[in-house]
Amino acid sequence: MQDLQKFFADTVETVDAELDRLIPSETEEPTTLHQAMRWSVFGGGKRFRPILIFAVGKTFGARDSWLVRTAAAIEMIHTYSLIHDDLPSMDDDDMRRGRATCHKKFGEATAILTGDALQALAFKTIAEDEDLKPEVRVRLLSEIATAAGSPDGMVGGQQMDLEAEGRQVAAGGIDRIHELKTGALIRFAAIAGAIIAGGTEGEIRVISDYGADLGRLFQITDDLLDVTQTSDILGKTAKKDIAARKATYPSIIGISDAVELAEGIHARAISVLSSLDHSHELLTEIAGFILSRKY
Amino acid sequence: MQDLQKFFADTVETVDAELDRLIPSETEEPTTLHQAMRWSVFGGGKRFRPILIFAVGKTFGARDSWLVRTAAAIEMIHTYSLIHDDLPSMDDDDMRRGRATCHKKFGEATAILTGDALQALAFKTIAEDEDLKPEVRVRLLSEIATAAGSPDGMVGGQQMDLEAEGRQVAAGGIDRIHELKTGALIRFAAIAGAIIAGGTEGEIRVISDYGADLGRLFQITDDLLDVTQTSDILGKTAKKDIAARKATYPSIIGISDAVELAEGIHARAISVLSSLDHSHELLTEIAGFILSRKY
Repeated sequence: MQDLQKFFADTVETVDAELDRLIPSETEEPTTLHQAMRWSVFGGGKRFRPILIFAVGKTFGARDSWLVRTAAAIEMIHTYSLIHDDLPSMDDDDMRRGRATCHKKFGEATAILTGDALQALAFKTIAEDEDLKPEVRVRLLSEIATAAGSPDGMVGGQQMDLEAEGRQVAAGGIDRIHELKTGALIRFAAIAGAIIAGGTEGEIRVISDYGADLGRLFQITDDLLDVTQTSDILGKTAKKDIAARKATYPSIIGISDAVELAEGIHARAISVLSSLDHSHELLTEIAGFILSRKY
Repeated sequence: MQDLQKFFADTVETVDAELDRLIPSETEEPTTLHQAMRWSVFGGGKRFRPILIFAVGKTFGARDSWLVRTAAAIEMIHTYSLIHDDLPSMDDDDMRRGRATCHKKFGEATAILTGDALQALAFKTIAEDEDLKPEVRVRLLSEIATAAGSPDGMVGGQQMDLEAEGRQVAAGGIDRIHELKTGALIRFAAIAGAIIAGGTEGEIRVISDYGADLGRLFQITDDLLDVTQTSDILGKTAKKDIAARKATYPSIIGISDAVELAEGIHARAISVLSSLDHSHELLTEIAGFILSRKY
């Protein structure tokens, strides 16, 4: 577990240094936009998706330098989605990671453009990654664009989530929303590590299953944290899912069933890894970490 | 000129058929999002950027099938930028191309997500274009992401435009805003045709200069149309630049000087083409068309 903490810290340091290199300087025009990009990206995120791509990539023997730009790109997509999600017409949230959301600090128009610029920069980053062959880059770009868009990705899930607010949603419906809204990008982070490392198609399929389960696990524990933790610990408004009458696992199946569901998915995520020839201790530890996470 | 009209009509037909194939069906979940994507993309746009990539591509000998997906991708980026530009916190426009803007018809949250989904789909479309070699795809993706983002592209220009509203802007400042806000994507459309057709780096540079001038010409005539035409003809709110105290060429240098500037840029755009070995009648005609356009 101490090794895991060190792996997390090292990865965050590597990825943050790359994000700092990639995102335009605060002194470059238009300065407000670039300040807003940095405000949102360097706002104390956990970097879970970058950590996952590094964990899978290293499991399959990739070097840090092959992984770091795709990891930065995933974090840009994730950050842009949070900025747009927090907007007044969406979740209308003033606080994120313990400080003002992008639109509260820079205004709504700039926040919209900040998200738009981060999305474009994510694709630019992978397209220009000279450590990867063009064939690998176009595969990553195809996968990340699918995972970020609609109908099979994040934006599709956000729209479904929007339409589900205040409505009765079945457990099947919520699975699909989360599979798209958060699962698709997490699954992409996992397979990206295997693709970059040159994993076989069979290995990529195993990692895809693992990544999909990790995404489910992440969402259920996120929903649980929303009802069990305070705003102080989360660094964002707690209980807001309830206030917004959002479809969440605890609200549909109850807290104890949601915990049981998380444990079942965790067990499945780990067992799927056993078919790999590679040592996969790091991936097992990460699944355990998400199951028991407190923030 | 009759041939030019036929070339325009044929290109629009080809590109629209591809857009129809690429954008998720209105019956696919989330249906509202896909309806909104189609509402905005099939809203009577002139398809100027797709026409430009076809014109350059055919000048350099490319087949339609090599050009059509990149052309569709450019139109998706352009459409997403209009959707976000029309939002209440941005230009707050109710009418576009003679009908309700995306947020007026589908609500603000859906409009934000519609733009986001179109941007992702644009990159996916090029990444998955099997008619082009991976090397060509990553070059196009790098160029379009740069042209769409910040500091060297569209979003950077939109932010500068936002900050310039109601402020005194020098002619140099407005050049830079327009170079980024509309010029970068138009220049990309031009060079994309040459890149796809396998033009030399020297040819791509000539086309880049031509495309940059065409972008300037397009913006100046756009500004002029805003003050000289009615809303009926434009299909959008006329005189809104004046109402918003936007920095435009007519407002800074006056109408007659703006017309003269347009004529000078038109002459330069045409003269630059003379260094090409290829017959470039189509590109000359397009420059003439933009200079004298009425809508």
